[in-house]
Amino acid sequence: MAVHYIIASHGNMAKGIYHTYNYITQCEPENLYIINAYTENDSPAIQIDRCLSGIPEEDKILVFTDIRQGSINQLFYTRLAQYDFFLVTGMNLSLLLELMTIKEEELNERKIQQVVEEARREIEFMNIRFKAGQLENDDSQENDFMM
Amino acid sequence: MAVHYIIASHGNMAKGIYHTYNYITQCEPENLYIINAYTENDSPAIQIDRCLSGIPEEDKILVFTDIRQGSINQLFYTRLAQYDFFLVTGMNLSLLLELMTIKEEELNERKIQQVVEEARREIEFMNIRFKAGQLENDDSQENDFMM
Repeated sequence: MAVHYIIASHGNMAKGIYHTYNYITQCEPENLYIINAYTENDSPAIQIDRCLSGIPEEDKILVFTDIRQGSINQLFYTRLAQYDFFLVTGMNLSLLLELMTIKEEELNERKIQQVVEEARREIEFMNIRFKAGQLENDDSQENDFMM
Repeated sequence: MAVHYIIASHGNMAKGIYHTYNYITQCEPENLYIINAYTENDSPAIQIDRCLSGIPEEDKILVFTDIRQGSINQLFYTRLAQYDFFLVTGMNLSLLLELMTIKEEELNERKIQQVVEEARREIEFMNIRFKAGQLENDDSQENDFMM
């Protein structure tokens, strides 16, 4: 069994965020589909159905979309009645980095919900952290960087 | 006074997410700087300093970066000691759509923190919502889409 990844957005966010993911991880997932909706000839619905219907039923599918209220997420959402896949929306880079590196056997609803909650916390207003660091005169926060 | 927007990432996420923002809003902010770090000749530090130092002191600056622990966010973070600007990280589309449409006079720390909290909630595992909708036989959730 394999995991298939679909990254989908209005416009070019999908290919942009994947480019950054690829730059940081140097990983190229085998089963990757990028949909930059409304930039190509086919309608998003056609692109999405072609993607989902072409994936073997025994494989897992993880879909990332740009924004919950958007048409792309809606198109996937309505297909949850027909196909078996995981759908996360509001994607940011943390979400991709965490979810796309989970092994197939560990990818389940509980794990995804946990990563979603972590990715939420990664949206941060850094001025608050900066001010707190100044108050505490604590340089340790400034050193909490990895990449 | 004006607001200047800087969208910065490793690789092409910055231009990708702005493309999607522009597609959805049909808005082109006057004072916009996009940094796709490590894809261009100049180092990110040079690009960032050129950006920040070129903006009039009386104007507001709102910076979006890709990921908290990343080098791009770190470069901006260390410059909070030198320049006066707002820095948000972990950007997703909701964050851009909300923050980039706030009027200059309403853009302040309290408002930004509020939008950050809203954008966090927009990262969502849609399967949970779908199952809840099925249980409740409540179609109203499916109609909560805008774009």
